[in-house]
Amino acid sequence: MMKLASLVLALTAATVALPAHAQFAKPEDAIKYRQSALFVMQQNFSRVAAMAAGKAPFDAKVAADSAAVAEFASKLPWAGFGDGTDKGHDTRAKAEIWTDKAKFNGYADKMQSEMSKLSAAAKTGSLDNIKAAVGPVGSSCKTCHDAFRKD
Amino acid sequence: MMKLASLVLALTAATVALPAHAQFAKPEDAIKYRQSALFVMQQNFSRVAAMAAGKAPFDAKVAADSAAVAEFASKLPWAGFGDGTDKGHDTRAKAEIWTDKAKFNGYADKMQSEMSKLSAAAKTGSLDNIKAAVGPVGSSCKTCHDAFRKD
Repeated sequence: MMKLASLVLALTAATVALPAHAQFAKPEDAIKYRQSALFVMQQNFSRVAAMAAGKAPFDAKVAADSAAVAEFASKLPWAGFGDGTDKGHDTRAKAEIWTDKAKFNGYADKMQSEMSKLSAAAKTGSLDNIKAAVGPVGSSCKTCHDAFRKD
Repeated sequence: MMKLASLVLALTAATVALPAHAQFAKPEDAIKYRQSALFVMQQNFSRVAAMAAGKAPFDAKVAADSAAVAEFASKLPWAGFGDGTDKGHDTRAKAEIWTDKAKFNGYADKMQSEMSKLSAAAKTGSLDNIKAAVGPVGSSCKTCHDAFRKD
């Protein structure tokens, strides 16, 4: 799994293009897809954040592995926000996602960037480095949720 | 995204260890995690399978990208099948997953292996290579579902 972390870390430097042509059979699938990717990301990020907050014992390998998976997952949800996917399945997505795409995409890019930094920090094995990188990720999540997710 | 495909492809040769220490706050999270990872995998695999079956136009880049994501996702669900995760959320998982772990893990390994071969095939850009690799993936899914998933 360290190899996995290393390889995903290598993605940090390169800007990874989103799968622009990703297509879904129906809006429900797109909505479930973005929710699934975000859930996988959140579960892995939360594991690292818990270590940073002293709520879980620090395990450098688990932190690096989890951050690497979170980084990979952070690149996936956006394919599921195509036009016409504002409904078709339970979703808390606000209409503003599609009426203010530039802002939404900017927030999405920011989160991916911060998550990549966290993955790089976790790879160093230093809990201090992880602590410094967790906050910006959490802020990037909250900023987007406050603007684009229903309560 | 081709960089992503290349990097994930590099994982093919190495056996990537599962995040053995992955922990979830509650069984519901573990169940949702494995379902989410499998959904992300299935959506990407289906896109490639549709091209192989002539049901979607062949796009070599989309096929390679999708297969790479499917390969990555194929490594994630297993962390969500820990002891005590047979219930706690809607699930079609059969009890045999936990009473016949060797068989289940063997099927899981087989699927990951076939998915890695598909990703490698898709990376070649040859539809014929993809066609040859899709069937074994589908069979590995079905074999496991027939044994371990409720109808």
